[in-house]
Amino acid sequence: MEWTKWLREIPDFPQPGILFRDVLPIMAHNDAWQEVLDGLEQRIKPLAPDAIMAPEARGFLIAAPLADRLKIGLVPVRKPGKLPAPILSETYSLEYGENQLEVERDSNLAGKRVVIVDDVLATGGTVAATSRLASRLSATVVGFAFLIELASLGGRSRLDANALVTSLLTL
Amino acid sequence: MEWTKWLREIPDFPQPGILFRDVLPIMAHNDAWQEVLDGLEQRIKPLAPDAIMAPEARGFLIAAPLADRLKIGLVPVRKPGKLPAPILSETYSLEYGENQLEVERDSNLAGKRVVIVDDVLATGGTVAATSRLASRLSATVVGFAFLIELASLGGRSRLDANALVTSLLTL
Repeated sequence: MEWTKWLREIPDFPQPGILFRDVLPIMAHNDAWQEVLDGLEQRIKPLAPDAIMAPEARGFLIAAPLADRLKIGLVPVRKPGKLPAPILSETYSLEYGENQLEVERDSNLAGKRVVIVDDVLATGGTVAATSRLASRLSATVVGFAFLIELASLGGRSRLDANALVTSLLTL
Repeated sequence: MEWTKWLREIPDFPQPGILFRDVLPIMAHNDAWQEVLDGLEQRIKPLAPDAIMAPEARGFLIAAPLADRLKIGLVPVRKPGKLPAPILSETYSLEYGENQLEVERDSNLAGKRVVIVDDVLATGGTVAATSRLASRLSATVVGFAFLIELASLGGRSRLDANALVTSLLTL
């Protein structure tokens, strides 16, 4: 089984000039998705993380089963206005304008080793903001794991140089 | 371990008069979260589902590990404009106005037995719309599973009477 055969590429989404990589068809085929989760689990496990953080919403679909497999905490990072409890917020730049990510203050992360998970590493703005939230919660980010890394966008250079950055597929 | 001790109640969120049940602190404590996932897995497994569907975004955090444990397909249902591929869409009513949910047409669900998962069953509008999407994809909805059911809101009455409706906690 080759999970990449279910990876779907859609030109000009969500805007002209962007080639969108759609990972949802992989999840719809469990054999392929097991291959993805097995691969990410193998890469993350040696880092001995205490928790996984992931940005909304595709990141949740990958992070949640990995946290379950490793039996460690799961800390969702959300778009503004979704979280009711006291939060921390970080702003990050988009191609046009900026956006924010939020995390609950009471996320049980102080002193913990954290891995940040998402589907695609593009410019890295989202996961870099997630990493700043982890630091502000007194956690140490020990790794970043992705299904796909779009190397030409240079996202890797925006991530903590002391953390492992790993992806199953580099495009 | 009692997972309910990590359930946080926040008054007047997201609007006055609503008592919001925040399940995220449960996920941050893996012992408690394992209890939740074990409980839901036990209830879903006898239905012999082929796939799990879940609405964005908290539903993803619960559905994804359950699909992984049961080694079955995972089909995310998203808010408008998030999915790039050809989609199906369903409209549902909110207290004020209406909203839409979308699913990819190519979700590998034809002829499949589906369980729909979310964190809280309130009025049931979101999961009822998800159920209609499943039917339009030629799947059979065999169950609905929730952490929490808010019984006074009557959501259960809006769900398919032939499907099991189960929740770990009824409030």
